[in-house]
Amino acid sequence: MLISLDRTSAQSLQEQLFEQIRQQILDGRLKAEAAVPSSRHLAQQLGISRNSVTFAYERLINEGYLITRPMVGTYVATVLPEQAMSTVGGASGVAAMPDAVPAAERRSPERLAPAAFTGRPHSILNNSRIPIDFWPQRTDPRAFPLKTWRRLILHSLAVAGHNLTEYGDPCGLMALRSAIADHVAVLRDIHVRPEQVVIVAGAQLALNLALRVLSREGDAIVVENPCSQGAAYLFESVNMRLAPIDTDEHGIDTRRLAGVEAQLAYVMPSHQYPMGGVLSLERRRELLSWADRTGAYLIEDDYDNEFHFGGMLLPALKAMSPENVIYLGTFSKSLGAGLRTGFAIFPEHLAPAAAAAKALLDNGQVWLEQAALAEFLLTGGFVRHLRRVRLRYQQRRDALLSALRGQFGRVEVRGTEAGTHLAWKIPPGLPRAHQMAALAKSRNVGVYTIQTGGGHEYGTADVSNDWLLMGYASLSEEQIEAGITRLRERI
Amino acid sequence: MLISLDRTSAQSLQEQLFEQIRQQILDGRLKAEAAVPSSRHLAQQLGISRNSVTFAYERLINEGYLITRPMVGTYVATVLPEQAMSTVGGASGVAAMPDAVPAAERRSPERLAPAAFTGRPHSILNNSRIPIDFWPQRTDPRAFPLKTWRRLILHSLAVAGHNLTEYGDPCGLMALRSAIADHVAVLRDIHVRPEQVVIVAGAQLALNLALRVLSREGDAIVVENPCSQGAAYLFESVNMRLAPIDTDEHGIDTRRLAGVEAQLAYVMPSHQYPMGGVLSLERRRELLSWADRTGAYLIEDDYDNEFHFGGMLLPALKAMSPENVIYLGTFSKSLGAGLRTGFAIFPEHLAPAAAAAKALLDNGQVWLEQAALAEFLLTGGFVRHLRRVRLRYQQRRDALLSALRGQFGRVEVRGTEAGTHLAWKIPPGLPRAHQMAALAKSRNVGVYTIQTGGGHEYGTADVSNDWLLMGYASLSEEQIEAGITRLRERI
Repeated sequence: MLISLDRTSAQSLQEQLFEQIRQQILDGRLKAEAAVPSSRHLAQQLGISRNSVTFAYERLINEGYLITRPMVGTYVATVLPEQAMSTVGGASGVAAMPDAVPAAERRSPERLAPAAFTGRPHSILNNSRIPIDFWPQRTDPRAFPLKTWRRLILHSLAVAGHNLTEYGDPCGLMALRSAIADHVAVLRDIHVRPEQVVIVAGAQLALNLALRVLSREGDAIVVENPCSQGAAYLFESVNMRLAPIDTDEHGIDTRRLAGVEAQLAYVMPSHQYPMGGVLSLERRRELLSWADRTGAYLIEDDYDNEFHFGGMLLPALKAMSPENVIYLGTFSKSLGAGLRTGFAIFPEHLAPAAAAAKALLDNGQVWLEQAALAEFLLTGGFVRHLRRVRLRYQQRRDALLSALRGQFGRVEVRGTEAGTHLAWKIPPGLPRAHQMAALAKSRNVGVYTIQTGGGHEYGTADVSNDWLLMGYASLSEEQIEAGITRLRERI
Repeated sequence: MLISLDRTSAQSLQEQLFEQIRQQILDGRLKAEAAVPSSRHLAQQLGISRNSVTFAYERLINEGYLITRPMVGTYVATVLPEQAMSTVGGASGVAAMPDAVPAAERRSPERLAPAAFTGRPHSILNNSRIPIDFWPQRTDPRAFPLKTWRRLILHSLAVAGHNLTEYGDPCGLMALRSAIADHVAVLRDIHVRPEQVVIVAGAQLALNLALRVLSREGDAIVVENPCSQGAAYLFESVNMRLAPIDTDEHGIDTRRLAGVEAQLAYVMPSHQYPMGGVLSLERRRELLSWADRTGAYLIEDDYDNEFHFGGMLLPALKAMSPENVIYLGTFSKSLGAGLRTGFAIFPEHLAPAAAAAKALLDNGQVWLEQAALAEFLLTGGFVRHLRRVRLRYQQRRDALLSALRGQFGRVEVRGTEAGTHLAWKIPPGLPRAHQMAALAKSRNVGVYTIQTGGGHEYGTADVSNDWLLMGYASLSEEQIEAGITRLRERI
């Protein structure tokens, strides 16, 4: 890496560094998958402060030129932002860019040629050991009902019989599907037969399943902007045409759907990720009426509706329009991401196709966890667990809001009504998001940009520059208070 | 269903029944997903023996016109054999039939129109309660090391910490990947870094992953003929062009590869499913040299190599040519299908693409089973378990061979060197496979055709008509003896 910095320039050192590394990546001098030197090493080499390097790196990561692999290092991204999807302007907000992602080169007969797949990995794993870490995808490990779970696991093992050695239904254990159908009937007013419920290893697999059932290459999909990274990169990797629609505090802006034609829309009405907006009732109706007009199916990802703090929990799209909506739920937020268990609920007329597609995707989930979870739901333990944890998370949300207000005065936040994280708009005059994150890290506090927190913004980086993501579920009220105080001190 | 039988015809009643139902399905008078009457009911209605109906149904199922859903009923198939893939004759053996599967109709704006997906479900689930069931995909539930597993699970739960609530690496727990890398080094002479090992929910998901990494719609893939149903239907559902190559007792006939161009080949060298052939060393070399010439990658499915009875265990393709081969392994046969745990080993240069593709496919496996399995491998428990079970299965294989010889004299069998099932060629003069299966069932004995046993034959039904699949791993020597005796008595 050849860097030459001009200390007399009006451009800051970190900006020069950012520009030069970015240019070397675009020129191909720094190749995809190449490791970049550690910030400490590069700072020493260039004789500049480590912060300048960290800032430049954070921005390169934030904008998609570099990728961090936890515990391993930082690398040049395989797919650069210039090659990736971006919005096309215009009133409709539709990005019809089937060619924006260059078709992956065909593998030449030469053995070591690159593979066909060129998707990019999303941020879901966080191995950092930052003492006070507002990582937005973490729930409280101490909230896991370990004793109860141990009992359920032991009981299931005792009655397992041939279930440990036999293939099960690829759509999941009927007892669990049935328990989930009962659960969503009570909690979300969604009334379905157990056969419509498919157990999956989390929402990411559910999205793959829904795409397998409902879409083909080149189909258009409406996505929220910003959107969750796992979904955004998946849609991109299977060459869908993306129609990103901006969101605000009321969720996806349905006025911008006028004129948009798409086969699918992927939305998170209860608590949008990453921005936290809750889709208003009026917009829910507009979205469903758009789907009715265009014949599009809606994929409703209700990943953290279990944590809803006061106010009215609005009806699920699936409850309002059972035939139009594929509903995704997960136990990753409500119980534990290590269980890798979620579910997709298909409209009745799609259930046979979903069952066939699921069998060809995988032969089902681990039996033991399914059996234990079914028992947990049936005995009412899950609902009691939710009640307990909801209260705890609400107190932590309150602590975060009060710490932010205490340190920064009037704050603009989104997504406080539900879930386990919120989005905070950085007050005017303070550094931009990637710099804030780097500064916080230097004080052993983890805060995240849209990109590093597992979100993805299409087109401009306006939101990414101005907002931070903060998860509060895994931190005590004292840690939250201390973390925000340290952040304030550092900037 | 309107049936008129001619008792004076030279055609048997069951043949007439078969023809008429088939014709009604092809005409569309019996529609996809329509339930057919129970065999008892139809027999009463027509005033014929229930066996005639059962024979006709078995054949319709066998040839793909009807589909059985265990515990639910029998239905008209969504994809009929006439619409599905079949071989194109000719020296090359290549079926270049991208249009043979009618492109699924685009979903019309009307809400209840069919979905895009038109794949067919494969036979992996067996809920039948046949007393003596030679179901080829079943291992012995009593062989599962329950006590040890219980201890490992409890230990893992005790040290779980945040692992129950945190997302893990989508490629799997490093301790398990590392233990598997050590295991295959010792047992299969495959030397890889743990980063090349990806933990998956079984071979079906591994195949999806390999396709995501290496192929695109319209690519050609060499498959064995007959082939495993899960693989065959998957390749078909993602619109690959299929090049089925016949197999014999030495596995896939590599002479027929001359002139075949394909991006991929899917093979099972250790013990071909369903036919059981073991790929000879010479053919392994020929296959690798074909891959070298054409630039194709080989997917080596080594699903039951752990059960190898005497003779030389031939080297894995992956050991002979590390850069050309994606190696799939599973714990479904060796330990238990209910654990839903397998692995894919990618060549080093494909590992980053595989990791990215896996993350977009799902966010990884359940933590608890991975942790327990890693411990089981590391402490040597798994290898001891294998040794114990191998001996037991070998005795059952011997019992089956001796029962077949005792009842039928000289028998032609395939796949006896390894695995948990064998294929038996029905002696001349006896009924054809689907009839044999129906006769056996009437005596509470389960034997399976290629199709009902989870295999798929391309083109002619020669193999399907003449061979039966018999799994022996879950039956005692007495049950095996009794089952074959009853079968002999019935025919």
